[in-house]
Amino acid sequence: MSASQSQTTSRRPRVIVVGGGFGGLRVVRALRSADADVLLLDRRNHHVFQPMLYQVATAALSPATISAPLRKMFESQRNCEVLMAEVEEVDLQRQAVRLRDGVEYGYDWLVLAAGSVPNYFGNNDWKKLAPGLKDLDDAINIRRRFLLAFEQAEMEADEQSRLEALTFVIVGGGPTGVEVAGALAEIARHTLRRSFRHFDTNVARVILIDPGDNVLKAFPDALADRARRDLEKMGVEIKLGARVTAIGEHDVTLRYKADGREETLGANNVIWAAGVEASPVAQNVGRSLGGEKTHGGRIPVQPDLTLPGHPNVFVVGDAAQHVHPETGKETPGVAQGAMQMGDYAGRAIADAIRSGGDASARQPFSYLDKGSLATIGRGRAVAALPHAQASGLGAWLLWAIVHIFYLVGFRNRIAAMAEYAWMYFFWERGVRLITGENVLPKAIRPTPDPFARKGQ
Amino acid sequence: MSASQSQTTSRRPRVIVVGGGFGGLRVVRALRSADADVLLLDRRNHHVFQPMLYQVATAALSPATISAPLRKMFESQRNCEVLMAEVEEVDLQRQAVRLRDGVEYGYDWLVLAAGSVPNYFGNNDWKKLAPGLKDLDDAINIRRRFLLAFEQAEMEADEQSRLEALTFVIVGGGPTGVEVAGALAEIARHTLRRSFRHFDTNVARVILIDPGDNVLKAFPDALADRARRDLEKMGVEIKLGARVTAIGEHDVTLRYKADGREETLGANNVIWAAGVEASPVAQNVGRSLGGEKTHGGRIPVQPDLTLPGHPNVFVVGDAAQHVHPETGKETPGVAQGAMQMGDYAGRAIADAIRSGGDASARQPFSYLDKGSLATIGRGRAVAALPHAQASGLGAWLLWAIVHIFYLVGFRNRIAAMAEYAWMYFFWERGVRLITGENVLPKAIRPTPDPFARKGQ
Repeated sequence: MSASQSQTTSRRPRVIVVGGGFGGLRVVRALRSADADVLLLDRRNHHVFQPMLYQVATAALSPATISAPLRKMFESQRNCEVLMAEVEEVDLQRQAVRLRDGVEYGYDWLVLAAGSVPNYFGNNDWKKLAPGLKDLDDAINIRRRFLLAFEQAEMEADEQSRLEALTFVIVGGGPTGVEVAGALAEIARHTLRRSFRHFDTNVARVILIDPGDNVLKAFPDALADRARRDLEKMGVEIKLGARVTAIGEHDVTLRYKADGREETLGANNVIWAAGVEASPVAQNVGRSLGGEKTHGGRIPVQPDLTLPGHPNVFVVGDAAQHVHPETGKETPGVAQGAMQMGDYAGRAIADAIRSGGDASARQPFSYLDKGSLATIGRGRAVAALPHAQASGLGAWLLWAIVHIFYLVGFRNRIAAMAEYAWMYFFWERGVRLITGENVLPKAIRPTPDPFARKGQ
Repeated sequence: MSASQSQTTSRRPRVIVVGGGFGGLRVVRALRSADADVLLLDRRNHHVFQPMLYQVATAALSPATISAPLRKMFESQRNCEVLMAEVEEVDLQRQAVRLRDGVEYGYDWLVLAAGSVPNYFGNNDWKKLAPGLKDLDDAINIRRRFLLAFEQAEMEADEQSRLEALTFVIVGGGPTGVEVAGALAEIARHTLRRSFRHFDTNVARVILIDPGDNVLKAFPDALADRARRDLEKMGVEIKLGARVTAIGEHDVTLRYKADGREETLGANNVIWAAGVEASPVAQNVGRSLGGEKTHGGRIPVQPDLTLPGHPNVFVVGDAAQHVHPETGKETPGVAQGAMQMGDYAGRAIADAIRSGGDASARQPFSYLDKGSLATIGRGRAVAALPHAQASGLGAWLLWAIVHIFYLVGFRNRIAAMAEYAWMYFFWERGVRLITGENVLPKAIRPTPDPFARKGQ
């Protein structure tokens, strides 16, 4: 152990964990019996079960159903304390993290599990126009925007403006993009169908854009094809081989890679699901280390997830770029990867604290792929398991069981199951709430006579 | 019927209902078979079950559990449409309402059910420092503030600042004030007890202030006394005969009516439950009518709830000041009153549309008091029924049954029951979520060493 303070006092080693996502939780848990003081820092007071975040964004689940207060989770782990604070910088030399208000806390061991943020590839002015989906505020924001879009359409007398209000462009055909697109198509065609008097909700367009030649690139071709066909059956328009080149308040412009052709879509609602980059604090650490620029600002780590030259600092989850030394395989930035990395780092620290731990004897971290699941809509999903593939209702049930099983906390599992069953049988989404101070839909040309346009 | 437009065309009469609270909902429902076009305007897209709003503010229930989308509620009532819009003004002469964006809609019949807002008695600068509790945003705001207060306390090295963070002052000893005070005391003493490492949550102070000589003035003395004793047992400090004279960021000043003595309490958290006034649009209408200034800006209505000189305009709910012509009794500003007034106004309009309805033959509106309930805490409530009184667990069960029964929508009832049962048996509150962009607790003097202060 290389911590400077621990040489002069006999106090217990201090472990700071930055981030209470899937990775950070597993680190803290793995340290539950360690003779150490563990400090978990997160800028939120809750853990979010990210794979179901799109369900909050699409009004299916309440925020509380997919989240749990970090304090509550570690209430009975007496060696752990939780502070709600944002880490701005890590000083690797002085072994300290600096919080946003300037306070510094020293560590003997550090685990950076700070996750990722949407990657706008330099176009940071798109952030406001095309929100990403990484935390509960994002999800509530997207929910508000899509519900307001339908409210605006109801009071809009201008046909063109109504169509723009009802056009939803999802950028990125990975699992999140596919899930959001499928859910929005279902909402327009089923959930809201009978709620509006001035337009047919079927006119709503859901457009999914991806620069590749298929959706769900991480899945086997047969499953990706199935997902694409399912989405198209549900009414989603899919535009492949196209990149976004401009986003305005009422339009999105694409360029097709094949022929350079540009296309502009009238749309007020753009959702960004085109990829992520390491969170700012991790990118800062990466830059301070020098070395080559990496994909999404991720930090290249040693085979044992530590920083080169800093054997007491681990990086886990989306912020780590880890390649297995023997197989040459890169660990993907998914929940499973973060959890396994968190387990590994937590155990490595616990071992080192218990036995003085010889880091050089440590086995390299090795990612075990348990399979990938993506849900497309009601009773539709695809599952790529290590030795099998599934699609349709079977895959959807598997998805539901796995996700509800992993949902944090006993109560949330029951709540999620009940909310799911409700949604499944009644095509209804229970959380159609627009919240936020002074939020009102704004019609470009408000209908002069709401009574006159009824279909009676 | 006095509508100008209807004399020139043969179209169906148009009824505009302003506000989707308890009163407005009942009006629309009563018009379900009427040969009329009904337009419900509300600045929110949802109805809120206000009697349980404090449960959202105190992290017990999710916002969606106590609310329902207005569109969904009236989906199958084909003569009704819903627009999410804020009415700024009513032009009684031209029979039109004007929306915030300037659009005007004409009506043949108008029902003003616009509810009330917190009454700061002229001290409008207190609004930010002492939020009221009238809608979901208020509730989420109060929830955020009280959870942040505990977060701040955990990282606060300054003892005085920590105490100020943990002192909650509730202004107003009516049902809302009593409910919030009881819930906060329970949270501090039970729910959060094991979640913090740096302080004992029992040091939190919950102070309830009322200018009268008891809490729950609308209840019989024996029940009010019982409620006061219950609150005190739960650790709530009650200060009677005192008015707030100043509110700062870190303090509240009271003046006692008896001796003029002033007292300043160090407290960062003030919740305003000291009374309501009619919402701005109703106050505008009241002013345009002239007449004497009324209590809380409410509009004095005829015995049949219409405006003097405007037999096609009804006012129902909190915005109406209604006195029964024979008994001289004033209808109280409670949910029951609003519902009964809404039923009455809706039926009166339906009758008039069907039969040409002779307004002079109309029976005056008469309020039927079905009793009052207030909950104090886990298994503690008081119930003042027309021919009986109850307190303790029996009253609490009655409260739970009545409120869950009235909760809008089948699904919400089940969700609320499940969440209640959970809270009751596990002392746990499932919605301990701090949401809102860039929200972090701010310590006055942040602890220099979070590890050092553990009780180990």
